[in-house]
Amino acid sequence: MSTPVFAPPGDKHELETGVLFSPRFDKDGLLPAIATDARTNDVLMMAWMNEQALALTIETGIAHYWSRSRNQLWKKGETSGNTQKIIELRTDCDQDVLLMKVEPQGIGAACHMGYKSCFFRILPTGKTPDDKLELEMCEDAPMFDPKEVYGKK
Amino acid sequence: MSTPVFAPPGDKHELETGVLFSPRFDKDGLLPAIATDARTNDVLMMAWMNEQALALTIETGIAHYWSRSRNQLWKKGETSGNTQKIIELRTDCDQDVLLMKVEPQGIGAACHMGYKSCFFRILPTGKTPDDKLELEMCEDAPMFDPKEVYGKK
Repeated sequence: MSTPVFAPPGDKHELETGVLFSPRFDKDGLLPAIATDARTNDVLMMAWMNEQALALTIETGIAHYWSRSRNQLWKKGETSGNTQKIIELRTDCDQDVLLMKVEPQGIGAACHMGYKSCFFRILPTGKTPDDKLELEMCEDAPMFDPKEVYGKK
Repeated sequence: MSTPVFAPPGDKHELETGVLFSPRFDKDGLLPAIATDARTNDVLMMAWMNEQALALTIETGIAHYWSRSRNQLWKKGETSGNTQKIIELRTDCDQDVLLMKVEPQGIGAACHMGYKSCFFRILPTGKTPDDKLELEMCEDAPMFDPKEVYGKK
């Protein structure tokens, strides 16, 4: 997949008001993609797609990302079984973010830590911002043990 | 605000399982922040925060971002009146994304195009990825006229 798949971004007016899908990848060739649970509307995760991952997501209807830490294409849930079936795909006003409504497959844990959502910790508000702010857990126990699913790390 | 406000990121284990809030800004000093409507759970927008914007968000309880296009601190809604009151703030497993539940103020249009959400266009699924994909509108008419609010551009 060496030639660009998608239309190159047009000018600001075209991007914001036109009908042509022309995703704006950043200087590293990546685009943030937010996955929400189609049933509850909860945000499950945010990860990154390159052009290949986005093309595969559209083609297969299953979320694919680009792993920045592993530097490789990442079919979400390939190891854990917790894949994400695409129900709806949107882009934002200037076409540099994607929003996906997904139907979580498997046991439905989006986070590699075993939680349903990666956003399992709250930062209490009304505090003075400093270097001692503490997070609070806001999800139940993990749905799987990462060590069992991915092996010891 | 020249000295860092927040704790520097610890190792992977500490980031993922610890209680210390230590946001991981990217190499440009920015962090993606997703805003959802606290009442409907709909995703309204995704924008970026630098350390100052995040500190101000926590301190004031009103969403502040860093505008990459204008290269300046951006109190969301300062011109349009559509500010965002923070109801809840979360971070993700590796502390490089923020999720905010907000109560939209003013007429509640998060998008500079006048829409409630920046994600007002759907990319129909089941298509072959190519350079002719067309978006479909999925929100009602804009809630305000950008020309009236921001002036002619």
